[in-house]
Amino acid sequence: MIRIAVDAMGSDRYPVPDVAGAVIAARQINCAVLLVGDRGRIHQELRRHDLSGIRVEVIHADQVIAMDEKPAVVGKSKPGSSIHVGLDLVRSGQADAFVTAGNTGAVHAVAMLYTLRRIPGVRRPALSAIFPIFGKRLTFLDVGANADCRPEWLAQFALMGEAYASTTLNIQSPSVGLLANGEEDGKGSELIVSAGQIIRELPIRFVGNVEPRQVLEGKVDVVVTDGFTGNILVKTFEASTRYLARVIRDELRSGVFTSVGGLLARPAFERARARVNTAEIGGAPLLGVNGVVVIAHGSSDSAALANAIRQAVYAVETDALQAIQTRLALIASPAPADRSEKDE
Amino acid sequence: MIRIAVDAMGSDRYPVPDVAGAVIAARQINCAVLLVGDRGRIHQELRRHDLSGIRVEVIHADQVIAMDEKPAVVGKSKPGSSIHVGLDLVRSGQADAFVTAGNTGAVHAVAMLYTLRRIPGVRRPALSAIFPIFGKRLTFLDVGANADCRPEWLAQFALMGEAYASTTLNIQSPSVGLLANGEEDGKGSELIVSAGQIIRELPIRFVGNVEPRQVLEGKVDVVVTDGFTGNILVKTFEASTRYLARVIRDELRSGVFTSVGGLLARPAFERARARVNTAEIGGAPLLGVNGVVVIAHGSSDSAALANAIRQAVYAVETDALQAIQTRLALIASPAPADRSEKDE
Repeated sequence: MIRIAVDAMGSDRYPVPDVAGAVIAARQINCAVLLVGDRGRIHQELRRHDLSGIRVEVIHADQVIAMDEKPAVVGKSKPGSSIHVGLDLVRSGQADAFVTAGNTGAVHAVAMLYTLRRIPGVRRPALSAIFPIFGKRLTFLDVGANADCRPEWLAQFALMGEAYASTTLNIQSPSVGLLANGEEDGKGSELIVSAGQIIRELPIRFVGNVEPRQVLEGKVDVVVTDGFTGNILVKTFEASTRYLARVIRDELRSGVFTSVGGLLARPAFERARARVNTAEIGGAPLLGVNGVVVIAHGSSDSAALANAIRQAVYAVETDALQAIQTRLALIASPAPADRSEKDE
Repeated sequence: MIRIAVDAMGSDRYPVPDVAGAVIAARQINCAVLLVGDRGRIHQELRRHDLSGIRVEVIHADQVIAMDEKPAVVGKSKPGSSIHVGLDLVRSGQADAFVTAGNTGAVHAVAMLYTLRRIPGVRRPALSAIFPIFGKRLTFLDVGANADCRPEWLAQFALMGEAYASTTLNIQSPSVGLLANGEEDGKGSELIVSAGQIIRELPIRFVGNVEPRQVLEGKVDVVVTDGFTGNILVKTFEASTRYLARVIRDELRSGVFTSVGGLLARPAFERARARVNTAEIGGAPLLGVNGVVVIAHGSSDSAALANAIRQAVYAVETDALQAIQTRLALIASPAPADRSEKDE
């Protein structure tokens, strides 16, 4: 049975949604959960749930990393954090994956530098978002792990994203696009132009530059970008849909007929909201580290956390890690280049 | 009377909306328009309009720059283009401003390198978008002129945007934010972190980093970013609102009550659509060149073009150019630094 370590101290309202999400997952999905965090608080929370017939263990961790703590600092100063302990369970083989709604930067730093470390040959792990677009699942990376990137890193993101999409998301021969400010080759920043030249040579279905419009029309399965731009795109998507929803609500209320129309149409609005809700997928896999790690939004509720756990179970079942390793081996002898960057 | 040179060959469907927009502006706003482009086609188009009591002149230009032509190439190879001729009218003082819905990159290149040139001390002109957010006008720059930027350029964008917002948009002491992937100081790419340090020292109301959410909540009046990220944000905003509108439409149609609700609510949707329509403002001022230049979207209709002309008239009336020059003088001795970069 697949064992998922779940950070009980991760979300903004920990440990309530974290524990509840783990219990939902343990019941609905064929997996055991290891709740990592303050033993006392977890047991107290577990008392509110029916645990009959499901496998839930508690692993004590006596430190908590807050959302606003600096990743570089806490990676070193809090070796007893739930993030550290959870990732270490994966490193030691006691768990098959780690799921957390905690501080993304800290998860990235602790995974890369202190516990799982990078898959051999990987320059930088990337945080990927999975977007539901018109019933398709779009893999988008990097969305925040690396604000400054080099062209070769983006080429690796392309391979890792493609591997994840084809295995865990079960998309046959996924198409890969490079996010840019214009579709024509040669458009983009220096980083994007250089990255495009490298990615074009890879044995993947690369369609070239894509603009936000093509991304949101579901034209590609994998979108590659640096972590700064990717983060801005994801947040702009969320902010824009929220903005439009608010403008529509204002306008509906400004007339009698439109108010009535708005009431009748409410179920449709609710469904639309769910469809653009990025939390529906529930988890962002951190690709490139030596283990399956899925990061959920800090504001996740129990359903979103259960979805993130489901995502982690899929990744384990489909052996995403092995697929990424195989894909990366396609780039000729990455090891020497990696060695030279080891101490950056 | 203010004279606005208008590119008759700029928009995707030129010269129809371009000429119609100029005629609307000449009638509604106190300005004379100089239509620049193919004499025969403009006169043919003008025959469809009532020109009594308005001032419309035609200035012949025998070349047209297409949307997909490379700016660096056509800047040199097409000195007779409507963009070149129109900008030259401003340079020579025959017009007070130039408005076009043409190739943005070409306008930028021809203005900077061959006609108006930069305001002394300006490293790079920036294309700014004016967004209507909750009844406020948000100035956003750069949105596409410079894909790769340096920190000092962003600092100049901050000053230019602030000057434009306080004069032409009539905002008292505008607040300025720096677009980033986190609100805390120190978040962002190397470019953003360095730019933040410079901007913090400027005598403007700088609020630090802003995320897309704050931008779309209207928390600041001016948002500074590089042209690559700015372009992605603007296009993601447009694509996201279009996406949500489509999802809502789908969901409304999927049930009888919601369909009826959707019909009743239609006027509210139309008003919401107009409110998030970036073309309502109609024009993106190119800031930092020696003259007033406003660029409209290629897909502009006559109303959007008339709005862009209105924007240009405001900029002339409020002397945006002088305000930018005064603001830039606040940066200690910019001239020597500029000289060293002259031939880049």
